Formats: sequence, structure tokens, C-alpha cells
Amino acid sequence: MNGSVSLVRTLLENGVAVCFANPGTSEMHFVAALDSHPDMRCVLCLFEGGATGAADGYYRMAGRPAATLMHLSPGLGNGFANLHNARKAHSAIVNVVGDHATYHLNYESPLRGQTVALSQSVSHWTRMSDDSAAVARDGADAIRAAKSQGGQIATLILPADTAWGPADRPQISTAPAPLHRPSADQIAVAARALTAPGAALLIDGPALLDDLAELAGRIATRSGCRLIAPYTVSRIRRGDGAIAIERLGYPVAHNRQMLSSVGTLVLCGAEAPVSFFAYPDQPSLATPPECEVMALCGPTMDIGWTLTALADALDASQAAPLRIAQDLPALPTGALTLEAVADAIAALMPRDAIVVDEGITSVRPTTLRSLTARAHDWLHTTGGAIGQGLPCAVGAAIACPDRRVLALMGDGAAMYTLQSLWTMAREELDVTIVVFANRGYQILHSELTKVGAAAPGRNAARMLDVTAPDLDWVALAAGHGVRGSRVSDADGFVAALKRALETPGPCLIEVPC
Amino acid sequence: MNGSVSLVRTLLENGVAVCFANPGTSEMHFVAALDSHPDMRCVLCLFEGGATGAADGYYRMAGRPAATLMHLSPGLGNGFANLHNARKAHSAIVNVVGDHATYHLNYESPLRGQTVALSQSVSHWTRMSDDSAAVARDGADAIRAAKSQGGQIATLILPADTAWGPADRPQISTAPAPLHRPSADQIAVAARALTAPGAALLIDGPALLDDLAELAGRIATRSGCRLIAPYTVSRIRRGDGAIAIERLGYPVAHNRQMLSSVGTLVLCGAEAPVSFFAYPDQPSLATPPECEVMALCGPTMDIGWTLTALADALDASQAAPLRIAQDLPALPTGALTLEAVADAIAALMPRDAIVVDEGITSVRPTTLRSLTARAHDWLHTTGGAIGQGLPCAVGAAIACPDRRVLALMGDGAAMYTLQSLWTMAREELDVTIVVFANRGYQILHSELTKVGAAAPGRNAARMLDVTAPDLDWVALAAGHGVRGSRVSDADGFVAALKRALETPGPCLIEVPC
Repeated sequence: MNGSVSLVRTLLENGVAVCFANPGTSEMHFVAALDSHPDMRCVLCLFEGGATGAADGYYRMAGRPAATLMHLSPGLGNGFANLHNARKAHSAIVNVVGDHATYHLNYESPLRGQTVALSQSVSHWTRMSDDSAAVARDGADAIRAAKSQGGQIATLILPADTAWGPADRPQISTAPAPLHRPSADQIAVAARALTAPGAALLIDGPALLDDLAELAGRIATRSGCRLIAPYTVSRIRRGDGAIAIERLGYPVAHNRQMLSSVGTLVLCGAEAPVSFFAYPDQPSLATPPECEVMALCGPTMDIGWTLTALADALDASQAAPLRIAQDLPALPTGALTLEAVADAIAALMPRDAIVVDEGITSVRPTTLRSLTARAHDWLHTTGGAIGQGLPCAVGAAIACPDRRVLALMGDGAAMYTLQSLWTMAREELDVTIVVFANRGYQILHSELTKVGAAAPGRNAARMLDVTAPDLDWVALAAGHGVRGSRVSDADGFVAALKRALETPGPCLIEVPC
Repeated sequence: MNGSVSLVRTLLENGVAVCFANPGTSEMHFVAALDSHPDMRCVLCLFEGGATGAADGYYRMAGRPAATLMHLSPGLGNGFANLHNARKAHSAIVNVVGDHATYHLNYESPLRGQTVALSQSVSHWTRMSDDSAAVARDGADAIRAAKSQGGQIATLILPADTAWGPADRPQISTAPAPLHRPSADQIAVAARALTAPGAALLIDGPALLDDLAELAGRIATRSGCRLIAPYTVSRIRRGDGAIAIERLGYPVAHNRQMLSSVGTLVLCGAEAPVSFFAYPDQPSLATPPECEVMALCGPTMDIGWTLTALADALDASQAAPLRIAQDLPALPTGALTLEAVADAIAALMPRDAIVVDEGITSVRPTTLRSLTARAHDWLHTTGGAIGQGLPCAVGAAIACPDRRVLALMGDGAAMYTLQSLWTMAREELDVTIVVFANRGYQILHSELTKVGAAAPGRNAARMLDVTAPDLDWVALAAGHGVRGSRVSDADGFVAALKRALETPGPCLIEVPC
């Protein structure tokens, strides 16, 4: 076997069985190796950002890493933005990036670039194989790195000669190093702090899901503390029966108000609540100045152990967590407002839907009203790099073929990685895409106001508005092989959404707003 | 004035008057500054790769740098691939990238990333402003850096507080350092070498244009050497009256054959002729082993001075260069072959057309037949990062509003930065896009064969073919506000091309092939 085959077999034998790919010439031996291993599911993305975003979405729902396959330097560059998002989501991803044969790197060929430096600027782990016999070991190490520290970006760079040179056998990856844990003292102090008036527990990552969310809910009930999630959650369970968790938002003023009475904020799996951006004369943190922020357990630490220890310290294991009760709005009729769209989505979303949220400003009413919908998972942009939603929906749908995916997209955001529509059609994924077509970067209009600009002039308007011409989302969908429709009132949206949710395969609904 | 205003005025006072922009929140003060300076032409791109590729195309045709405006870390990441291409084209670009306020970088906010490290992996010059009062000086230094060494990528990172803090006045950039020159001895040796049988002069960059191309032609006539250009030219003058210059191609075997009789290869503005990729048991260079490669003048050295000195040493200033004579093919009729498309383009291309070539495998007949068309400029992909053609066409059209741009695109390549279609429509650019829709990454099929794979199986076919569903290019164009048509025979293509070239604004023609 050659290095490529040893790597494909290493991936498969370690449970990495999906590869989101956008290969080029330097990856042809790897493509040939994938070709001889049909048990690897290869999903073509027409742009590398589609591949990395899909791997992120896959991990969020499957809980295990997918591989990506990308071309050297600029290929990885195209995948950068969604690796940034995945990094912030603590998603485990194994990137396989080709490179020139080692001896070819001595020359200034067109594609020679700083692949290693580029990778290091976004990956937690980067290695360039230097010998075909070592590729399997390198691959196993990459998988281990991806699974370490609560989920990491691992990038293995494969010079062409290490792909085509001889190799022995696949390798099994060793277990990741144990996660760090807080000390017993820290647990005791935090547990005590949570029982004080004005205490809150800020949780993120796995603490928002399944048993750990239950445990967090018990802790909140028992201690009397508030339970809060960040705005940029990788995945949170919501709707009927889910644990009741408050959630921070985007606006700084909203978050400061929400946390104004918090005296102690204990972090478990979460970073300190920093605002998305800084503004002149505004603090970066949303907590009040006198609030004690207790960094008990960071996102890369042992979140499960920490919650269990907290629950034990509080004797909370029998406490009943507060749950969300289902409360569906009536189906809307009449004008097509954001609230009508929100009601329709909340009323029609099937049980166990996966909502991918890159709706930016337009999605706020939907976020609110769907909180009491049927039980569902909500996947938010984590790193603020727009263009994450459609690829993430691809990955989520491939991870969960029996569940419906609903991608709520701002029009500006959807344009970054629109090629994912084609992958949805190719793979016949059950994704319903709602495009909120407000014809611009609406969020930037409010940001421009914040910097003290009056009504925008020609230059600002032309940089914030996506008009003249308007994008035609039904045509864009059709171009990628996806059914689409445009609605003009609430009844039309209800009918289009019902139809989309009942029909196999992807479907796009343009909502002018 | 604040730092942003001082930077906009610095750009304008140094002749940087076009800004290809895709801003985000951390750039809002810069947007406000642009808004108050309507003499800066702001061109919105719906993806950062569109902005960087447009700046590349702009420089290739205007010969002066444009600015780009991008969002921190992942925004710059999206622009990476076309900065890679621009770097290989030796295009001067001034990137302005926002970043968080310096104090906000102490927190793990969603968009915090390694903007400096990322920039350094593709830019020649990177600086992060640390004081609003220094921003104008930093901007002037960025412009100087961009104009240095024959054209560079300069990236100025602007933390939000340096954008909104106080500043004094704009700054004028100082002249770039003088370019290095070969020694008199090296000129004498090279001039002598060029007169030997089997000598060739490999030229690139400015040597392919205007007076310098004339000079190279005189040197060739006088010395008897061959005059050769690389495959990946940033810009070359072709057609009626242009200097006759042979050009290398993509296939390694073709290039080795072409250079098989070359005994001495003198490089002027060019790198050694390295193949795009390495293959097992194949050398990286296309020159024969016994050929002497004389690196007289690299791309960052003084190419104009070197050619003048060579011409003087050879007493070539009165020699008549060999020129291309116009020879137009007849308009094709009948079946829609790549040759028919080539003939139609060669016959109909107007004088001074700008051809942007990202046609990969499909464009070869057109490259050949258009050599004797009306005089035109030909802009090729330089760095092998696909997704360069449409953005480059945007920049070229903005640089030369009185000339027709013809973008020859492979379908796989066009999908990477398709958002540029919208910018063409918004700016009403006279760009005709021909999409060779062969439904896949055709070049990779031949590369897969080269690695010894037999007929591709399911996994390989699904990674190399863009079928099931087919992309509908007329719908994709319409979605972006661009007129489009699909043709099925040569007559239809002729009619569509004529119509496109006569009509203002962008137009796309899908050629199934």
C-alpha cells in the first residue's frame, strides 16, 4: 500500500468515515485511495469553505470528527473561515491537505505557498508528513489531536511524495490525554457561590446537551442560581421538554441588562461573556464591574466531571430541573412580517428538527417564538465568520439523515458559501432553507449608526445594501439544482414551509423582508 | 480627524482611489470615513475573494494599486486564495483589514483570531497599527510596500480603536527602494550566451508589455535567441502587431518537448520553468538536464534596466522585432466544438479586448487560435488558485472602462467566486463571461489517470464530476442579475457572442462541452 491508502484505512479504522472533499491535483493519490475504499463516504463541495463548514456541522450533530480533503495553500485558505467557526465551536475536524512533493517545494511553482504557517494560524494541531511510511501514524495522531481538549482542528499536510510512496499498515490512534479538572477546593467554592443571591452559572458546549444539561438544570434548581448560555452556542437543545436555559444575545445593551443583577458568574464550559465587538467607551465584558467572574471550568476542560462534582457538592442529583413546556403559536395569516415567519416556523417545525441559525438580524423573532416549539436542536454561528450556515446544514443533515434540517439564513450570509446548495441537491439532503432577503447587511446599518454616522451617503449605502440589482433567490436555488419559491404573505409562507417539510430533498424559500 | 479619515485621505493623496470592499462591524469607522470621501470609488464584493481578486485584476490593467477592505481574521481568510494569485502575479495591493480594539483582544470573543499570522502567510508586508495617530504613516508605508519589489501584497491591520481615535493629517508615501540590478559582468555574460545556438530568453512581468516587450523582441532578433513566456502570465500582449513570444503550457511533456533543444535559458523577470505539480520519477524543471539556466534578473529586480542593458550590449536597439500578423478565422458553423468556440472568439474579439483566462482545459483551442486575433491583453491565472477569473475580470473592467473584458471560465473554477457576477451587474461592467460547462474538474480526470488509476469508481467520479444535478448557468447568472443564455451549436454561440459584445453590461454564455 502507499501512504494515501494507509491514511484512508487509518481514518476508517478510527471511525472517521465521512470526507467532505474539494481535491486538486496534489491530492490525486489520496483520491485514488478513497476510490478503492467505498466505505468512506465522500461528499463533494464546490468550494473548500463548504467542506470545512460541513465538517463542523457534522461534528456538532454526530459528536465524532469527519475528514476534509483540500488542496494546498489557497485551498486551505478557502476553508479558513469555517475552520475559524469550527474552532470556536470546539468541533473536532481532521483536515487532510495535499502539498507539493517535498523536492518540488524547492522551486517557485504557482501553487507553492506557506501551507504550514496558514494552517497554524487556525488549527490547534498541524503536521506535515515527511515520509510515506509515517503517514498512517501521522493520521492517527491527527485523529487523536482532533478528539483532544474537547474538540480541536487537526491539519495533516501530505506532500505528494508521501502520498505515493510506500507504507506498511494503518494505525490506531491512542486515547486523548485526560482533560484538566478543577480542584476540589474550586468545586466547593463554586458550589457555595451558586447558592448566593444573584449567582448565575454560564454553561456552554456539552453542558447544553443531554444528561449534562439535565445536571445543570438540577444544579440550578437546587442552588437557586440562574442558568445561562452564551449567544454563540455550537448546539443547544430547546423546545418541549428541554432544560430551561436563558440565553445571551448579540446587543451589548441587552446583555448588560440581562446580567445587571449577577453578583457571581460561574463559568462551566464557557468563556467570560465578552461582547462580539468593542465600542468606544464601552467595557468588553457584559457583566457588571462588581460581578465576580469565576472561571471554574474552561471549554477545553472536563465539563462533565465538573458538573457532576458541582451537583454532588450541592446534593442536587434528585432536584427537578426546570423544563420548557410546549406552547405552539397559531399559524399566521396576512402580512409577511418577521413575527409571522417566526410563528409559522415555531408552529410547523417537526420534533427533533435541527435549526441552523445564520439569520443574523432577521431571525430574532424566530429565536424567541420557537423556544416553546417541539423539541429541537439549535446550531448557531460560533465564530462570527458569515458563510457558516449552509455548509453547517450540509454536515448536520449527513450526520442525521432521519431528521429535518432548517437553515435560517440572512441573504448576505448565504452568499458566502452558496455552493453548498448544490451539495444538498447532489446528496438529496432534507434541508429547508429560509432566506431572509432584506437586501443588505442589515446588521451593519445599526453598527454604522453606533459609530455616530448620520444617514449613510452613497459610499456607505453601496457597501451595506445588496440592491441594484436584487438577488433572485429562486433563480440562485434553481441554478444549483434546488427547488425554490418566493412568498409574499404569511399564508404563502405557511404553505411553502409545509410543502418543503413534507418533500424529500432540499428546498429554498425566499422571504422578502 | 480620526485614524480612519487619516487613512482614507492618505490612500487618496497617494493615488489609491478604488476600494474593493467587504466590510464588517470592526470596519464601520473606516466605512464612515469612506462615506465622507466620495472621490474614493467603493466597489462592494459579496465575498472577500471577490475583493482581492478584483484588486489583482485592477493592478494588472491599471498598473497602480487598489485598496481592499476586509473584516478581521476569517474575512482576510476568505480573501487569501486570490491574494495568493496576486502575489504570484506581482500585483501591488493595499489590504485594509479591521480588527478588534486592542483592549478587546484580551478576551476570547467570537471573531478573535490570528489576523497577523494569517496575513504574514500570504502578504509581503504586514503591520498592525498600534495608535490612531500613526495610522496615516502606516498607510503611507503600506502603499510604499505595495509598490516595492515590482509589486507586493501589503496588509495594514487596523484595530477599531486606532480607527476611531484622533489623528493629525494624511501622509505621503516615500519612494520604494531602488530595484536590484544584475552586474555589468552578468549582463555581458548573458548577452554573449543569447547569441549562442540553442539560447532562449524567458521573460515575464513587465517584459511582456509595451516598450519592454519591444525591447525583448529586438534582443531576440539581434541575438537570434528564442523569446519565451511562462504559462502563468499575469498579462501578455497578443494578437495583431504584438511581439511574437512563444509560451509554455500546462502539460509537463509539452514543455519538455518545447525546451528540449535549449542549451542556455536566460531568465529576465521570470522564475525557472518549473512544472505546476510534481509527478513520480519526473524532474520538476522543464529544461533538459544539460541546459544552463541563467537567473539574470528575478521578478523583483529591475527588469526594464536589465532589458535595456542587454539590448545595449547586443547593439539591438535598431533591430526589428518579430511581430504577430492578424489572421482571423472564418466564423464557425455547425457543431459546438471547443474549436468552433475558439474560432468565434478569435474572429469576434474586438481590438484591445482584455481576456481573462480561467478556462483550464477547455480554453486551449481558444488560446491557440486567438493568437492572431485583433490586438488584445491576456490575463492568466498566476497562482493556480481557482476562483480568480471572475474577480479579476471585475478589476480589469473597472481599470479600463473603455475596453471589453472577456472572461473564459471553466465551470468548476467559476463556482469558487461566483458572487462576482453580482458586482459586474451592480457596476454595469462590460464583461462577457463564457462558461465552458464540461460538468466537472476535467483537469483532475487526466491527473487521476497520471497517477495510474484505471477508470474512476464511484468515489472518484463523485469527487471529479459536477453532475447530478447539473448546474444551470443561465439561472445562476439571472440570480445575480446578469443576462445569460445557453447555446447548443456554433451558430448560436456566434450570435450570442456578437450580441454580448455589442450590449453594455455583463452577459454570460453557457457552452455545454
